[in-house]
Amino acid sequence: MVVFLGIDGGGTGCRAAVADSAGTILGLGAAGPANVNTDVTGTFANIMTATRQALSGHTIAETDLVAVLGLAGANISAAVDHLHQMLPFARTRIVTDAVTAARGALGGADGIVAAMGTGSVFAVQRAGVMRQFGGRGFVLGDQGSGAVLGRTLLAEALRADDGFAPMTPLLAEVLGEFGGIEGIITFGFRARPAEFAALAPRIVQSDDPAARRIFEDAVKEVRGIVETLQAGDRLPLVFLGGLGPSYSRHLGELWEIRAPLGSGLDGAVRLALEEA
Amino acid sequence: MVVFLGIDGGGTGCRAAVADSAGTILGLGAAGPANVNTDVTGTFANIMTATRQALSGHTIAETDLVAVLGLAGANISAAVDHLHQMLPFARTRIVTDAVTAARGALGGADGIVAAMGTGSVFAVQRAGVMRQFGGRGFVLGDQGSGAVLGRTLLAEALRADDGFAPMTPLLAEVLGEFGGIEGIITFGFRARPAEFAALAPRIVQSDDPAARRIFEDAVKEVRGIVETLQAGDRLPLVFLGGLGPSYSRHLGELWEIRAPLGSGLDGAVRLALEEA
Repeated sequence: MVVFLGIDGGGTGCRAAVADSAGTILGLGAAGPANVNTDVTGTFANIMTATRQALSGHTIAETDLVAVLGLAGANISAAVDHLHQMLPFARTRIVTDAVTAARGALGGADGIVAAMGTGSVFAVQRAGVMRQFGGRGFVLGDQGSGAVLGRTLLAEALRADDGFAPMTPLLAEVLGEFGGIEGIITFGFRARPAEFAALAPRIVQSDDPAARRIFEDAVKEVRGIVETLQAGDRLPLVFLGGLGPSYSRHLGELWEIRAPLGSGLDGAVRLALEEA
Repeated sequence: MVVFLGIDGGGTGCRAAVADSAGTILGLGAAGPANVNTDVTGTFANIMTATRQALSGHTIAETDLVAVLGLAGANISAAVDHLHQMLPFARTRIVTDAVTAARGALGGADGIVAAMGTGSVFAVQRAGVMRQFGGRGFVLGDQGSGAVLGRTLLAEALRADDGFAPMTPLLAEVLGEFGGIEGIITFGFRARPAEFAALAPRIVQSDDPAARRIFEDAVKEVRGIVETLQAGDRLPLVFLGGLGPSYSRHLGELWEIRAPLGSGLDGAVRLALEEA
């Protein structure tokens, strides 16, 4: 009997689902982080823990599983190759967690997915073929993401303190909270993307002039990206991630916005079934 | 007898000069890095090595020195306070290396200094009073610096590869050199500012459309900063750092550009003499 395994793995945890060939879920599991580029060994261990949990109570061998894994960091092929060799499944396909999330969100339909969380990544599905765009990370990409918005706010606070940009109530508030420019500089050198992203809700919900300008610039950038990905079509658009609703509000008049059909785990199971 | 010590300390090395009250140099010394924020203990050791070298052949006690130290990382006061307590000099004043560089460049004259190297920092001197602006580091500031230019070029190459920006010969060349988007992403996560800055000469000297746009944006930003610092005056402008000549070429019609009078070490000695 062939059994199908879907894994949805991100920087904070991973989930596993085992399904029969009709797509009926036979078991679920969960474990710790699965960013393959950050930690191959830990990712392997967490995937196996979640998988064994999903298999518990069944007499299914790991070596009978057809698996699709959507993992954070899977755009770095050396790490993916390494993990691939460690896994015991009958067949294994490893894609980024963006691909499984987009597949879960769209099902089989054509559309564009914009995942706007701590990072950002985009995907387009046309006639069942998924292509990923963006998602290049905090330093060089992640346009419109929470981490980039937060970093921009702090940079703007420093600029305002120098007199290079107008001081606003929010910038003054942030300077106060962080202990002035020195506090912001120190934070900036050590903070991880998620810590920058913690500032994002205060930007997207604010009437402060600096916050509005920062978010309007980000909306313009995301709009440009979606326009490029539409390539003249009018595909429906699904927003994922914590900032999704904020972007939806600004871009809902341009394109049809749809709610996601399912999760990244649904997407992984769906892709595994298609491997048959 | 009071003797004066100037220290010019940066991320790659530090230099010391000892002078008498007439400003005559009695001895010089050099040692390793002196970024007080990165490594207080190493900075202390290197400052003392350079100082003892400058004192060799003289019977001058360290405890008789009136010292001004211009150090990288000296905008972080906790590190500065720590170092201050370790140093044996009669009097010690610690400023950023930007302040000593600007003082050396301008002497006593009014003017604006723009140090455009791996990082960037600005200073204005009016009636002997120096104020520093910018210099907030690679993550949140360093506008127009080599590291920021290099990072922007790599981000643009990723955008072009995604179809979000036009592909140009230089972007294609960079993509090839780094091993495609995956190579650029990997580099982006681990590279230090100096590694990003290594790309800058190819940007400021290039006729490539992407390089021109990136550098024109940077020139516009630096121009805006200098305009703010002029505050309606027409102070002369001194450029320092490897990218200084490139910015001079673009901004020389707006303001009088002057060559630096002296080095950061000259500035430190000058400031030490003023402590008397």
